[in-house]
Amino acid sequence: MSTRQSLRKELWFKTPERRGYINITPEVEKAVAESGVMEGLCLVNAMHITASVYINDDEKGLISDYDKWLEKLAPHEPVSGYKHNSGEDNADAHMKRQIMGREVVVAITEGRLDFGPWERIFYGEFDGRRRKRVLIKIIGE
Amino acid sequence: MSTRQSLRKELWFKTPERRGYINITPEVEKAVAESGVMEGLCLVNAMHITASVYINDDEKGLISDYDKWLEKLAPHEPVSGYKHNSGEDNADAHMKRQIMGREVVVAITEGRLDFGPWERIFYGEFDGRRRKRVLIKIIGE
Amino acid sequence: MSTRQSLRKELWFKTPERRGYINITPEVEKAVAESGVMEGLCLVNAMHITASVYINDDEKGLISDYDKWLEKLAPHEPVSGYKHNSGEDNADAHMKRQIMGREVVVAITEGRLDFGPWERIFYGEFDGRRRKRVLIKIIGE
Repeated sequence: MSTRQSLRKELWFKTPERRGYINITPEVEKAVAESGVMEGLCLVNAMHITASVYINDDEKGLISDYDKWLEKLAPHEPVSGYKHNSGEDNADAHMKRQIMGREVVVAITEGRLDFGPWERIFYGEFDGRRRKRVLIKIIGE
Repeated sequence: MSTRQSLRKELWFKTPERRGYINITPEVEKAVAESGVMEGLCLVNAMHITASVYINDDEKGLISDYDKWLEKLAPHEPVSGYKHNSGEDNADAHMKRQIMGREVVVAITEGRLDFGPWERIFYGEFDGRRRKRVLIKIIGE
Repeated sequence: MSTRQSLRKELWFKTPERRGYINITPEVEKAVAESGVMEGLCLVNAMHITASVYINDDEKGLISDYDKWLEKLAPHEPVSGYKHNSGEDNADAHMKRQIMGREVVVAITEGRLDFGPWERIFYGEFDGRRRKRVLIKIIGE
């Protein structure tokens, strides 16, 4: 006999710099354990539109490469190069977030995140220095 | 007692220009209400491969910035620069769609889209002027 | 009366070249049929962080265009241009994968992938020549 379960949880962040990359895998694993879901799906998404949730390697060099690469594809400066920046200066953050993505959906199998060897869930912040949220939603049984 | 529910719905579009960005949040909210799902997931995806569904801000300046930026990363011209363009002229639209993404998955909590303050669902069209579809699929209970 | 079902399946790949693009739609369709799920969601994701699962056209010219375009946005050479590449040479593959995406979520309706006319699921390999996996997870009823 199985019962449908769901769990909702928020994670809060305030990065000290404009941009930041935080491994949130342990928090998501904790939520999966709390949910009691054995087979299901785990959605993790940024609730703000200048931040990302993505899956990749927790390796310092790579994170530095990502940061440089995103800045090349969608530079912060000149701030005046974006129409969105009237009263704002974060247009580039909206672009960077589209490249890295809003959300990930991860399978839950036998009560755990069903991951390959190097998959880690990251919060990618592109307009930080203020409190922002990530949503975890788990459904399954 | 809870019962499993699902709902499937199509939205149709025909943008007047090659490219267009349409806020479809009200239509998705309507579908969630119709579904009767209280806890679940809502998938919204482009059914065509030269269009996107993405979540970001409904702000005119930003949409103009996105359009310019996508055109820089994946220019329409010269049309002959793409091998796909034999009989077609939309190769760039296939690139733009990969950057903006095919789909979003949104949590449903207490019968509503579980959104951060500025999250809006958009249909991004990169090869318009003909009828194209978006799929909404809701599952939960 | 309906019963909750789920299915988990792995696909294995070893591409002969560094980069490769493989249409895996038939394998996913087979998994959907095996699952017995009539209404639900099908998650397909790369289990490795230098590969993608994406949905687009199975057209030779387009695949060649994608390959050239990704190489322009995130070039492999010079290998020394990336900090990740100490003992590695695949930093560019981590970038390419972010553009093309980790996963797709596809609706299942009446026991089949609910697809638009040209949607095909692809495995995109950016650091091949070794055995790597894709996960299929189906939930529904």
